[in-house]
Amino acid sequence: MSANDLTIGIAGLGTVGTGVIRILQAERTYGGSDRTVVLKGVSARDRSRDRGVALDDVAWFDDPVALARSDVDVFVELIGGEGGVALEAVEAALDAGKAVVTANKALLAAHGMALVEKAEAANAPLLYEAAVAGGIPAIRTVRDYLAGVPIASVLGIMNGTCNYILSEMEMGGYTFEACLAEAQRLGYAEADPTFDVDGFDTAHKLAILSSIAFTTRLDASAVQVEGIRGIEPEDLAAAEELGYRIKLLGIATFVDGSVDQRVHPTMVPRGSALAETMGVTNAVSIRGPAFGELALAGPGAGGDATATAVVSDLTDLARGLAPRPLGRPAGMLTPFRKAEASGHYGAFYVRLPIADRAGMFAALAAAMASEGISLEQIVQKTPHRPEHMPERAEQTVILVTYPTTEAALKRALSRIQADEVVVREPHVIRIAASL
Amino acid sequence: MSANDLTIGIAGLGTVGTGVIRILQAERTYGGSDRTVVLKGVSARDRSRDRGVALDDVAWFDDPVALARSDVDVFVELIGGEGGVALEAVEAALDAGKAVVTANKALLAAHGMALVEKAEAANAPLLYEAAVAGGIPAIRTVRDYLAGVPIASVLGIMNGTCNYILSEMEMGGYTFEACLAEAQRLGYAEADPTFDVDGFDTAHKLAILSSIAFTTRLDASAVQVEGIRGIEPEDLAAAEELGYRIKLLGIATFVDGSVDQRVHPTMVPRGSALAETMGVTNAVSIRGPAFGELALAGPGAGGDATATAVVSDLTDLARGLAPRPLGRPAGMLTPFRKAEASGHYGAFYVRLPIADRAGMFAALAAAMASEGISLEQIVQKTPHRPEHMPERAEQTVILVTYPTTEAALKRALSRIQADEVVVREPHVIRIAASL
Repeated sequence: MSANDLTIGIAGLGTVGTGVIRILQAERTYGGSDRTVVLKGVSARDRSRDRGVALDDVAWFDDPVALARSDVDVFVELIGGEGGVALEAVEAALDAGKAVVTANKALLAAHGMALVEKAEAANAPLLYEAAVAGGIPAIRTVRDYLAGVPIASVLGIMNGTCNYILSEMEMGGYTFEACLAEAQRLGYAEADPTFDVDGFDTAHKLAILSSIAFTTRLDASAVQVEGIRGIEPEDLAAAEELGYRIKLLGIATFVDGSVDQRVHPTMVPRGSALAETMGVTNAVSIRGPAFGELALAGPGAGGDATATAVVSDLTDLARGLAPRPLGRPAGMLTPFRKAEASGHYGAFYVRLPIADRAGMFAALAAAMASEGISLEQIVQKTPHRPEHMPERAEQTVILVTYPTTEAALKRALSRIQADEVVVREPHVIRIAASL
Repeated sequence: MSANDLTIGIAGLGTVGTGVIRILQAERTYGGSDRTVVLKGVSARDRSRDRGVALDDVAWFDDPVALARSDVDVFVELIGGEGGVALEAVEAALDAGKAVVTANKALLAAHGMALVEKAEAANAPLLYEAAVAGGIPAIRTVRDYLAGVPIASVLGIMNGTCNYILSEMEMGGYTFEACLAEAQRLGYAEADPTFDVDGFDTAHKLAILSSIAFTTRLDASAVQVEGIRGIEPEDLAAAEELGYRIKLLGIATFVDGSVDQRVHPTMVPRGSALAETMGVTNAVSIRGPAFGELALAGPGAGGDATATAVVSDLTDLARGLAPRPLGRPAGMLTPFRKAEASGHYGAFYVRLPIADRAGMFAALAAAMASEGISLEQIVQKTPHRPEHMPERAEQTVILVTYPTTEAALKRALSRIQADEVVVREPHVIRIAASL
């Protein structure tokens, strides 16, 4: 070890942490820097577990906060969780003026502005390429490459778990529950999948990207979030018939100084880059008047892919290149202004569980017409009935509207529900004819 | 103007130069830097031309070399050309210790190593994001983001002109000549299109990316180059029948310490991201064991897109972030070792103009079999003959081989040509079943 080394401590030794160590051990001179990156300390829950990486010369810390305060140049936080010990350790490192590299989007979504301000006050780098879209350089593309030009929108598939589940549901005709269980078996989904499948993980990533892209303060609470639990195999089959695929998209748009941030399942046209993004792959698309559209696609999950992003931040530090956490100083960001809840403007797909009732089509069409919504399609699906099963009273009707506003659709659906035409809550999926 | 300004001079006021000025005039504080970017001098051929940007407070230089030597912090070279005044001006700026930003791939391909060494000796930044794949952050993704992990291959569609021509030929069934003329009319192709359509422009970009990716010295002369002039409408029709699209790809692969660099038309499977890249869009795909595949797609041509890339380099400079020209110091690069001419391994499409001769199929099949090449398809195309035209003696046979080596195919084709079965040079297109 020499005085010129860049010493690091890693807290959290899951697949990402061990991936970083494997890359470190294979090539220690990062990106041709004259500084060698040296792993000096680690911290994890279980010291005895064999992780397949040699940790003999590395100091062990039971307490990540003690590791953060120890004699290392960079604290790498891979513990996860929006608060608790991860927050405490990151704060301790920044307070001590140490550089922090983290993959923790939940932490940044909850405490991002406070941590950025702490980092700036301590003149300590805070880098988090791995927090958004795994092995895709999404953060640095928006923070550095596009920093000098206006950005109109950022959108994409940012959760590998959801995209895997939707891909499997579509390809095999399986239920959400079956595909979730398979994702859990393969390690793509957590035991508690809420964060991923209910859209919060995508919302966190979107809020971080949106803050950098639109140079506003970070506000993850302002994201309208809807996950994929309600998607049924018949929705995927209907999407196919209509020429679409269903994807969980995060969409952030800048309109007249305010920001619209939404996460919801969306039907996107087959053949488009987003529709063709399958499995755990992530895709991020950025639009702006000068450059048109820039699309990035790559692995959204997996230890080595996320480790690549962590290593990219370490490379910047070894090279002495430390951009500001949000690109520009926090003091130059504008306050976050949430766009008037305009929501999606476009066509909608609506699945309605109805009592099989005469005149039902007319009642539905009338409710839609009262809000000025034209229907492109209205189809009654007769469910497959095994011979030994009794006939079901409940039927499904699928509507596809012509472009309208989310508000108008909501009013029409309330009217339909008040009418007792439908027996349960209708399921709505937004259709993006072009993205 | 204050002492803290970053002053720049721009040589070359075409669509890219004026695009940069428009972006500069709209937002002068780059990426939240506390330095303002100030345009101090410009140089171009024709002073009187109205370029739609205000240049009243800007010094005019008839001689770009004088601008490069003038009192500016950054010299932006947008003149083009592999030598001449562009080279002279860039050398003058670096000799004076000034930062250089350039979009000139021909210059870098011809003189890259010498310029990099000059820049490093003068401790002057040399940035060229705009030289490769227009508005796509290809350079910085390889140079910075992936600097710490091994890269196995870099490939892509890197010439908007060729991709536009191939897209138009396919969609309209037009000839190469007609689509080239249209591209020239739209400003996508130069009056002398050699550089673009014969593959040299792609070769230059590939060599630059390849040097950074594989940390070798730059050698653009080692690229095997074949352009798109030989592509005929019937090739595109045949590709469609076979389930492919024809794209001009640059492909660089790292194998056992040596580098294979090729540019040639390639049949890529429909539905793949590369096949779906149409018009002037560019796409770059990077593979490596840690991260799998990372794909970038965006505008490959157009003044404002390329200007976005130039502005990204200016933003880095304003922020005081100046990476080394090739990421790592030139002294740490390994010598360039050209891979044994292995070429493409895979299936091949061969279009053979033949004299309509009995026993021709047998002769072709025998020649292929003698090199151990199996045929997947052999089809005689009877060309459409208008009634008033005489019958043509020349017929076309299309072969599709099973995977084989380029060397074996060449030997088989020589044998066929020696046999006088074919009346002109056969036309070969490589098929990439997966990319």
